[in-house]
Amino acid sequence: MGKKITPRNVDYSKWYNDIVSEAGLAESSDVRGCMVIKPYGFAIWELMKSQLDNMFKETGHENAYFPLFVPKSLFEAEEKNAEGFAKECAVVTHYRLKNDSDKKGKLIVDPDSKLEEELIVRPTSEAIIWKTYKRWIQSYRDLPILINQWANVVRWEMRTRLFLRTAEFLWQEGHTAHATKEEALKETKLINNIYSEFAEKYMAMPVIQGSKSESERFAGAEETLCIEALMQDGKALQAGTSHFLGQNFAKAFDVKFADKSGKLEYVWATSWGVSTRLMGALIMSHSDDSGLILPPLLAPTQIIIIPLIKSEESSKKILKKTDDLFNSIKKTGVRVKIDNRENISLGFKLNDSEVKGIPMRIVIGEKEVEKDEFEIFFRYNFEKVSSKYSELTSIVESSIMKIQEDMILKSKKRLKKHTHEVSSYDEFKELISSQSGFVIAGWDGTSETEEAIKSETKATIRCIPEDFDNKGVKCIYSGEPARHKVIFSKSY
Amino acid sequence: MGKKITPRNVDYSKWYNDIVSEAGLAESSDVRGCMVIKPYGFAIWELMKSQLDNMFKETGHENAYFPLFVPKSLFEAEEKNAEGFAKECAVVTHYRLKNDSDKKGKLIVDPDSKLEEELIVRPTSEAIIWKTYKRWIQSYRDLPILINQWANVVRWEMRTRLFLRTAEFLWQEGHTAHATKEEALKETKLINNIYSEFAEKYMAMPVIQGSKSESERFAGAEETLCIEALMQDGKALQAGTSHFLGQNFAKAFDVKFADKSGKLEYVWATSWGVSTRLMGALIMSHSDDSGLILPPLLAPTQIIIIPLIKSEESSKKILKKTDDLFNSIKKTGVRVKIDNRENISLGFKLNDSEVKGIPMRIVIGEKEVEKDEFEIFFRYNFEKVSSKYSELTSIVESSIMKIQEDMILKSKKRLKKHTHEVSSYDEFKELISSQSGFVIAGWDGTSETEEAIKSETKATIRCIPEDFDNKGVKCIYSGEPARHKVIFSKSY
Repeated sequence: MGKKITPRNVDYSKWYNDIVSEAGLAESSDVRGCMVIKPYGFAIWELMKSQLDNMFKETGHENAYFPLFVPKSLFEAEEKNAEGFAKECAVVTHYRLKNDSDKKGKLIVDPDSKLEEELIVRPTSEAIIWKTYKRWIQSYRDLPILINQWANVVRWEMRTRLFLRTAEFLWQEGHTAHATKEEALKETKLINNIYSEFAEKYMAMPVIQGSKSESERFAGAEETLCIEALMQDGKALQAGTSHFLGQNFAKAFDVKFADKSGKLEYVWATSWGVSTRLMGALIMSHSDDSGLILPPLLAPTQIIIIPLIKSEESSKKILKKTDDLFNSIKKTGVRVKIDNRENISLGFKLNDSEVKGIPMRIVIGEKEVEKDEFEIFFRYNFEKVSSKYSELTSIVESSIMKIQEDMILKSKKRLKKHTHEVSSYDEFKELISSQSGFVIAGWDGTSETEEAIKSETKATIRCIPEDFDNKGVKCIYSGEPARHKVIFSKSY
Repeated sequence: MGKKITPRNVDYSKWYNDIVSEAGLAESSDVRGCMVIKPYGFAIWELMKSQLDNMFKETGHENAYFPLFVPKSLFEAEEKNAEGFAKECAVVTHYRLKNDSDKKGKLIVDPDSKLEEELIVRPTSEAIIWKTYKRWIQSYRDLPILINQWANVVRWEMRTRLFLRTAEFLWQEGHTAHATKEEALKETKLINNIYSEFAEKYMAMPVIQGSKSESERFAGAEETLCIEALMQDGKALQAGTSHFLGQNFAKAFDVKFADKSGKLEYVWATSWGVSTRLMGALIMSHSDDSGLILPPLLAPTQIIIIPLIKSEESSKKILKKTDDLFNSIKKTGVRVKIDNRENISLGFKLNDSEVKGIPMRIVIGEKEVEKDEFEIFFRYNFEKVSSKYSELTSIVESSIMKIQEDMILKSKKRLKKHTHEVSSYDEFKELISSQSGFVIAGWDGTSETEEAIKSETKATIRCIPEDFDNKGVKCIYSGEPARHKVIFSKSY
């Protein structure tokens, strides 16, 4: 049996690391801050990716691929964007190694291969993409451009954590170009809605949507929309962002289009992304002290069948039942696997399926076959359902959406329970210091207040929900009329 | 209408570039040697990727993800591999930029951010992966490991061409670990067979399989199997390679496993890959002077419907027929699109669908609707089939595999026609200099002969097919008994 998982109430952060490690999701690599995503973790990411990709394509987006490197002169073209990423970027300066004449078998950077212009490993691709769009856009007929890219990016983070913050991560980045401001704003919102729908329906992770305050905006954006999820420890996690970039990049790269009357105008832009960080959000939303819990729609294996063979005589019967059940379940489209590993105890297999968060499990042994009484074990609530063999498949099939919906409901309840509205700063501090979740409060809209609250309590404005009414509300810090009612929280 | 495509017999190389550009597949970027893969090109690559991914998964392989960077000390660990790639690798030396105090708004590399150890942008991932496998492998129970990764890699090529040879390219790289030499050899062969099957069945590009001569092997491999395709200009293109790595990487990274008796042994390895180079092979296998020709199984759009509206009165009828046909075809699973772009002439649309290689086309106009007589146009042979409306869908559906098989047959004939066996060096030189395709000839097995032939004729040994009988064959160059009968050709 693997290492025991540290309980959440003992050390939440260790609990997270234990799950990532024991479920076989990812591990640290030999490169500072970079992770290895292991097959089981990657299979979950592939399911997320495939669903998001469908949603993007259904709304008219196409995939493409742009270079990994950004020449320094392009990188610095949009000043705010450059400023935002300059302090954490990997820089390629040479293109060749040569033998070290002092040490046999060792290599050194060949000083003769110094690049005339350094290349930045993309931390995000606005610069290289807008330089490309300049070639693609002449007239209104070339718009809109609705492109997405699945790629790796690098941000030289100093304090990294598997999935949540790594120097290299995988993500998708959408980059769209529009003829009007309205259309670009609509796109920004459309994508944030897709993110929200994906988080709730597939990750079983309801989120709060809103816009970011100026200080939390993407470098180079006029407005940043986001989805914010609440983790089990009461901290917020920013799970996706959708940026309205105005004409900033069009101006930086001189991208204009001729409108119907022939007048030249700068193009309007959006960009938006979610990353392997979603894996961290998924883990921390549902899992318990026994390991990972996965919503069935994102589980690489939705049900595992474990044949339990104790004697030669019954082995044939058991294996036949196992195979038949496997085939019958497979036909329904449910992702099913048999755990037929030899020399591994039942106890180990049971524990393994729990640590890995496989939503359902059936053990088929002599007793089950004889009595025609089988148990389906549900990982998310540890409940069991008994059934005759003939009904197993249909119960398994219908349980997929039942578990999914139960998990959504549970998450919604948790989100509601841990969202509090306050009207005094004392109440506010109390809730924030006990890490009680989202705190709704009035804010006067000044960055001074935002900064003061942050430095006094470590809470940040997670987002400004569109539908919050600020009428008659006062700022909890300054007592001035609130410009917005917003969501505060500590965060990842 | 776009730029005209240069005919093959005028300038083959320009023809290729014209197709890549006019069909909207890819273009050069602002980064030396790196390309932008445009949405249409990327959609073809996605279809290839998805099919290959299925084939890998069906044979028990799983996807994972390893870091983009390789620390120099790992990179140099396997000496031959390091030597093979040292001269063409991008090196990250710093992790931060700072403001240039001399020039406002400009950035310079911050000298204080110099890395203690340089990072190589992966040209291939054996080193970082085998360093990881060392942590994963203790006993025979941990084997085999069958992992694949879809990733970008960088090789600092000096002379680049879109898809065929680019500094950054996309690929899949499989890396497997085995307990025995036999099992690793079997894997090497299994994968080469998958590549060959994929090339023939999906790309409609029959290939010749074989092993590479020592001089053409992957750096660090004991044996390299490959698939070689023949382009229309008579040059060969290496389309995929599968390497038996022996215990070289296990030794370089000290990866041992305990066998059943507890004895420690080095692990056996394979690695294998195909890349976006396949796009170049696909283009050059089938296309003609009118543009791209795609085998239907890899066509993002398999049929395009163009409504032709000349008057208000008939417009409703035509659009209804178009929609009905679209829905009816879509139901069969065929990838269908309507070209309903406004203000674009029929001529432009027809040409566009031909340049892009869309396998089938139907124009729906007043005349067609009135007469109930429709034409399906086939891009690959410019033929047309007439049909009543009620039969269109079933003809379209059944044509997918018919076109695919026709294209396979045509390619097979071409391959056969351009494969010649010779017994004299004069004949050999004649065929090679006229770029007549694959030339089968005896080779004495020495690198001296291989090198001499290469420098005299520019032909290289493309592969040593397993099933070629060398009994009684003499080396065309030295006249000595041939060690192998091999395939020579000029190549990409």
